[in-house]
Amino acid sequence: MVTLKGIVRYDGTNFAGWQRQPHARTVQGEIEAALSRIAGDIPVRVQGASRTDAGVHAFGQVFSFEWPEEPPQRMRHALSKMLAPEIRILSLDCAIEGFNARFSARGKRYAYSIDLGKEPEPFLARYAWHVHHPLDLGLLESLLPRLCGTRDFGGFKSAGSTPQENTTRKLWSVRLVNRALIGPADAAPSLRLEFYGDAFLYRMVRNITGTLIEIARGRYPAEFIEERLKAGPPFQGLCAPAHGLTLVEVEYENHSQY
Amino acid sequence: MVTLKGIVRYDGTNFAGWQRQPHARTVQGEIEAALSRIAGDIPVRVQGASRTDAGVHAFGQVFSFEWPEEPPQRMRHALSKMLAPEIRILSLDCAIEGFNARFSARGKRYAYSIDLGKEPEPFLARYAWHVHHPLDLGLLESLLPRLCGTRDFGGFKSAGSTPQENTTRKLWSVRLVNRALIGPADAAPSLRLEFYGDAFLYRMVRNITGTLIEIARGRYPAEFIEERLKAGPPFQGLCAPAHGLTLVEVEYENHSQY
Repeated sequence: MVTLKGIVRYDGTNFAGWQRQPHARTVQGEIEAALSRIAGDIPVRVQGASRTDAGVHAFGQVFSFEWPEEPPQRMRHALSKMLAPEIRILSLDCAIEGFNARFSARGKRYAYSIDLGKEPEPFLARYAWHVHHPLDLGLLESLLPRLCGTRDFGGFKSAGSTPQENTTRKLWSVRLVNRALIGPADAAPSLRLEFYGDAFLYRMVRNITGTLIEIARGRYPAEFIEERLKAGPPFQGLCAPAHGLTLVEVEYENHSQY
Repeated sequence: MVTLKGIVRYDGTNFAGWQRQPHARTVQGEIEAALSRIAGDIPVRVQGASRTDAGVHAFGQVFSFEWPEEPPQRMRHALSKMLAPEIRILSLDCAIEGFNARFSARGKRYAYSIDLGKEPEPFLARYAWHVHHPLDLGLLESLLPRLCGTRDFGGFKSAGSTPQENTTRKLWSVRLVNRALIGPADAAPSLRLEFYGDAFLYRMVRNITGTLIEIARGRYPAEFIEERLKAGPPFQGLCAPAHGLTLVEVEYENHSQY
């Protein structure tokens, strides 16, 4: 058996998320079904780096799986062709033994896109959260450094998430960038928040984004960020909707080996 | 009665085109239904500048209609809010008497987007035609001036279209631009053809685009363009698919009056 590493890009709009589910169309489910067909109807299970929610997109989600032999060059293309046009396999390569897309990950980049137009922009409707309230963007940007560093993000995990002993994560950077990640070049006023960290709690990006927007709207004081970071109870505030979120990239150690 | 002029933007993916149909979701149908509700359940009929086909998008489609009185400032917003997020009313203003979005039009701009990646790009799947064959783009670009000017484009009208006495139209420019009109900034190799002319025959842009791609692929000689322009029979070749097409803008005389 060899371990393979795949990178996949998808428009998550019409999927019930990454994770396989018995009666729903999911990205993992579609990839596994295609790989099983290639394998001659033998079940294949893949491990994804991130279990993206329904509606969340990915520029570079990573998955790993075991395969009987070194795959032929054309296998990536064959797999890609079996999938819907909303999913594309960017690469498929041998990984070192023991590689696991989820547990070997050392860093992830997420982008959260926001449509700031007075009314929703039709070509951002699937890819950005429409916030029509006036926002204090200077204030929003000034809060971002407070989120960086090694922190207990327990106050930003969703109430319904599985209990985790350790909710400490490290955010290397959070940046505010002009223009949504996906959408037409002329798309009305839009922006995105770019998160780069070692790992993320369930819904952490969406909960942080929702909180930042609440503060930038003036509904919470800026200090609310610190309150949540003092290991508050699970998040009860505004979770930004799924469709604005994109998993941009997953990083691994010894990148060249994979 | 006053004549009103509206500009509307839409993602055409989930519509059966612009034109009202009894049992299908169309952009005209949705706008008319919303206006009728505003008018107090009195039927309202609008005239669109272009009857875009199913799947075709619009950055700036124009429509006109009669209304009992000068509309309040908030009517545009009210109308926009009643429509799906894929449709947005950009403006709604009084027009001069006799203004008709279709017959008063003096020029139109269309863009046709093409995804040149080896495999389809998921975030272009709704907005660009995926052509995976190698194309001679230099040749393609060299053909564009031949299309410009006042010509009989009868050879580029679709076989099924209604007979028209006059198939002469004027193309002011056809340009090749790097990058699809809609899609992520990092979208794989893509391009668009921008057409600017006084009027267009049914499916003319898609038929010209399909022909240009056939020539750039090497399946037809460059002279095929001239053959079609010699008032050939209705087009029988490759009509580029609808979802790559966007109606960008409609122009009127005395622009400031509307």
